[in-house]
Amino acid sequence: MTTQALPREPRQDRSRATRRRLLEAAVDCLASEGWAGTTVAVVAERAGVSRGAAQHHFRTREELVTAAVEYGSEVRVAQMRERLDVPSGQRPSTLDVVTMLGEMYTTPLFRAALQLWVAASSDEQLRARVLPLEARVGREAHRLTIEALGADESVPGVRETVQATLDLVRGLGLADLLTDDSARRTRLLRQWATTLDAALSR
Amino acid sequence: MTTQALPREPRQDRSRATRRRLLEAAVDCLASEGWAGTTVAVVAERAGVSRGAAQHHFRTREELVTAAVEYGSEVRVAQMRERLDVPSGQRPSTLDVVTMLGEMYTTPLFRAALQLWVAASSDEQLRARVLPLEARVGREAHRLTIEALGADESVPGVRETVQATLDLVRGLGLADLLTDDSARRTRLLRQWATTLDAALSR
Repeated sequence: MTTQALPREPRQDRSRATRRRLLEAAVDCLASEGWAGTTVAVVAERAGVSRGAAQHHFRTREELVTAAVEYGSEVRVAQMRERLDVPSGQRPSTLDVVTMLGEMYTTPLFRAALQLWVAASSDEQLRARVLPLEARVGREAHRLTIEALGADESVPGVRETVQATLDLVRGLGLADLLTDDSARRTRLLRQWATTLDAALSR
Repeated sequence: MTTQALPREPRQDRSRATRRRLLEAAVDCLASEGWAGTTVAVVAERAGVSRGAAQHHFRTREELVTAAVEYGSEVRVAQMRERLDVPSGQRPSTLDVVTMLGEMYTTPLFRAALQLWVAASSDEQLRARVLPLEARVGREAHRLTIEALGADESVPGVRETVQATLDLVRGLGLADLLTDDSARRTRLLRQWATTLDAALSR
């Protein structure tokens, strides 16, 4: 063991990078192995981090999964902003918007979120953690979709139609869970874009 | 113990009734306790059946859950037929159809199915069992919705719009998992019925 103190910043950076790798591995693990298969040991191995180092960050499975829930919802909000928050002069087409939404709800991140929702439906403590995070993701998805579509919520029915678009892509995410539903989804969203344009009178 | 033989029919009836009680309890248990919480012992207690009697019908948790999957999909198809398969002279309004669909995707039966889909997404054997059953439920839901709406699938876009309606209500089922979403759902489906009428040119 060296007595020379390591420079402070790099160590903090390494710690942050390790934590982030563990959280990314936890999200992937939730998506592919499900709730029961996501343990600190499994996630540590997937992340290429020693079990000791993993337990330095997350002592229990509960701590790890809670942090993964928070991390996953932050990443989902950030991805939505990155893809939908464009200057109004470069507004995407309705088809582009619904295609982007369709993609966002069929990622491993969505599958991981789905595992959490279902686990939270029979676990009060988890539900209390998941609900405020989901509310935030939902509000941001709605706001960004309204802006990307250039939709006017003061027109009666517009708010509900945009909400229906988000519920639709959530349903499409579910339809993609057990089989590759991409061909049907592409046809369906093409038609949805036409319906949406008519409904929003664009 | 009596040596007198019991009449044959009643015993078979009792056995069928017990089996049915166990399957109903298994569906309820999946919906409220989740996949991991659904064991033969828990389901037997919920059904008011002795553990011995339960194990006479279902030796393992696997057998019970598989039978519950099949039973649940039969009941879902039967419920859809009962509610949507009406004589063409008494065709329901578009709002009635989407309201009925919205109700069907927020029942304990839907929640139980959701638990199965999510469990099947990380379990190949279960997936192989769930897929053909889900395909059957999906085909029947589509056929009944087309008929109830009096929609003409030969018109371009109609097939996709009806499919989107079913994906939308599936998404609404998911939105109802952690909170009571009924007020928002009612507004949304009222608007969707208007959009659907315009899209189907009814």
